[in-house]
Amino acid sequence: MPTAFERRTRDAQAALSDADGAEGASAGGQTTSDYADADALVCFPSRNLFYLSGFAEDPGERHLLFFLPAEGDPTFLVPELYGEQVRAASWVEDVRTWADDDDPLAAVESVVSDLDLPPEPRVLLNDTMWARFTHDLRAVLSDATFGLASEVLSDLRMRKDEAELDAMRRAAAAADEAMESVRAMGSDAVGLTESELAREIERLLAEAGGEGVSFETIVGSGPNGAMPHHHHGDREIRAGDPVVLDFGTRVDGYPSDQTRTVVFDGDPSETFAEAHAVVEAALAAGVEAVEPGVAAESVDRAAREVIEEAGYGDRFVHRTGHGVGLDVHEEPYIVEGNDRKLEPGMVFSVEPGIYLPEEFGVRIEDLVVVTDEGCERLNRTDRGWEC
Amino acid sequence: MPTAFERRTRDAQAALSDADGAEGASAGGQTTSDYADADALVCFPSRNLFYLSGFAEDPGERHLLFFLPAEGDPTFLVPELYGEQVRAASWVEDVRTWADDDDPLAAVESVVSDLDLPPEPRVLLNDTMWARFTHDLRAVLSDATFGLASEVLSDLRMRKDEAELDAMRRAAAAADEAMESVRAMGSDAVGLTESELAREIERLLAEAGGEGVSFETIVGSGPNGAMPHHHHGDREIRAGDPVVLDFGTRVDGYPSDQTRTVVFDGDPSETFAEAHAVVEAALAAGVEAVEPGVAAESVDRAAREVIEEAGYGDRFVHRTGHGVGLDVHEEPYIVEGNDRKLEPGMVFSVEPGIYLPEEFGVRIEDLVVVTDEGCERLNRTDRGWEC
Repeated sequence: MPTAFERRTRDAQAALSDADGAEGASAGGQTTSDYADADALVCFPSRNLFYLSGFAEDPGERHLLFFLPAEGDPTFLVPELYGEQVRAASWVEDVRTWADDDDPLAAVESVVSDLDLPPEPRVLLNDTMWARFTHDLRAVLSDATFGLASEVLSDLRMRKDEAELDAMRRAAAAADEAMESVRAMGSDAVGLTESELAREIERLLAEAGGEGVSFETIVGSGPNGAMPHHHHGDREIRAGDPVVLDFGTRVDGYPSDQTRTVVFDGDPSETFAEAHAVVEAALAAGVEAVEPGVAAESVDRAAREVIEEAGYGDRFVHRTGHGVGLDVHEEPYIVEGNDRKLEPGMVFSVEPGIYLPEEFGVRIEDLVVVTDEGCERLNRTDRGWEC
Repeated sequence: MPTAFERRTRDAQAALSDADGAEGASAGGQTTSDYADADALVCFPSRNLFYLSGFAEDPGERHLLFFLPAEGDPTFLVPELYGEQVRAASWVEDVRTWADDDDPLAAVESVVSDLDLPPEPRVLLNDTMWARFTHDLRAVLSDATFGLASEVLSDLRMRKDEAELDAMRRAAAAADEAMESVRAMGSDAVGLTESELAREIERLLAEAGGEGVSFETIVGSGPNGAMPHHHHGDREIRAGDPVVLDFGTRVDGYPSDQTRTVVFDGDPSETFAEAHAVVEAALAAGVEAVEPGVAAESVDRAAREVIEEAGYGDRFVHRTGHGVGLDVHEEPYIVEGNDRKLEPGMVFSVEPGIYLPEEFGVRIEDLVVVTDEGCERLNRTDRGWEC
């Protein structure tokens, strides 16, 4: 799809030089309105780089940079051993290489000089760029001020096009299929360690057509479920244990992300069954609140109110959701204080939870896409805890 | 191992305030000597953070920072949902949390204020810290100058302690066990695609007690083996094909990394058999050269000379090795120009190769640890090509 990548790059250029064009960037859920003109954008291996150039690579210790001036064509500066690969993957024509016995800083200086930036330029850096490289760019662009690439790219990336939505639907379907197979394990899952179950989940994701995992699989059994970001360990799953299962895979580069909390065998505590019902109702209320024009925070409020009314307000220790796209966590963040209006094409998670330390956790999560009338759920499997 | 983590943190503090204490940081194999005093070090989720605190996590968009002043105790600032997990994993007592509806920048300001830094402090930032966070730290520490954490940590991390060596021995043993199972496949491997064999290798690594892979598995069959950075693809393995197998796993966070080049069935060319014997001799010469006090580059020379004398000098297109620790590629780099003296506890690869474009590649790699008298091989499986 070189055309799509080039179109996105041209859109990004237009946004760079447009001081008033966007509604406001948001960091950590806080909307800001201090948009400013920028003269260039610099990316390093990241989702942003893939989004603009079509070239996908993990960050590494060698200087691999993409320079986009507000006007003109972009330039790639890449280690010699990547030259062929970048030229094959990207629509960008100006690909310059440096060898392991060259000084990468001199190569950066040469590219920057050719960008012909105005005095005291404003330069946006990839939000995930390593300090190792931002230090070098600050040395070379000593009279510049710096901002973050998300100022222009998060707005563009937030609204998915049909090709992106299609990939996300297929990724969600693969994860749903894996979840159904996991649920069908029932009492066979008792006695497995969390890590063994995580490996089985990952095998099922691949079997369902997924490409790897989109984040580290979470299997939080019993008290481990009370730590929202516990991954998986040696604890054996027992009958009656609530088990938080939060996992995802990718299709065509786009991820899935959903959570179910199940009990594989035996009877859980009444406290758990009650908390699970509360979270299920909170999820339904959150999804119900999704429609174009409402603020992102109102989805958080709708879900949170249900949990607060049930008396668990202080046990819901995280935001209700996050946008999902090339990054599993991106805008829009579904959090109090984010008054960004929802628009068709935005995709995010709705994932309320209740965590009782040393007892258990419950989290249920679906991805939704905002449509013209309301929303479409990307996940369709049963939300209950029974296997 | 909380004691080991705390000891490392105290060593890092000593190095921070010690302008002349270290021999010199090294970037990409080049030793530098411009050490300067620093007043604090700030890490975000990374190998450095695990090394100091015992808390392992992937980078994310929320502010999760570890502040280590040159004197006094470290402070963790973490999102509320990580609070319990960080307190469980780390020896650090001062763990402060911020909630999703707090302003993380205000939380950073509060921690920085409590650090009681001198005016115009020098602050070292994690080399891989995202621009998103370095921008915030630069805003809060507006009169500071900044350096990179590797200035003090790469020296410390290079010399492994007993706990680290124990993990690396077990990771190497798991990989050796998987390699022996792969070799035992013999003619059963013929007809598999490279990707199918890679999946089987990854299954065998898990079966041998490994946790995931430490880098993308390389299966380079026939002419694909001549590209050192080829991973695996759809090419079917044939009888008589040399196949480069370079893979690794982790145990307790520490990786393995070794390579064998094998022929699963049938007879390879005489050229291959000869090249393999040369590489095997080069590996032996490299390992033989390892002892405390010799320069890293002398190991490169010892291995390279064997290949040059056999007339393949221009077919050995990469450095002889790299340090291995929490990062699979770290110091010391075994490369011409690196005159760093080897010391007990350093772990690195010795991995000479010969690459004949469009024909085949041969690479054989072992990890070694420098001991008081010479070195210990971490990999012990047969180095031959016969299955």
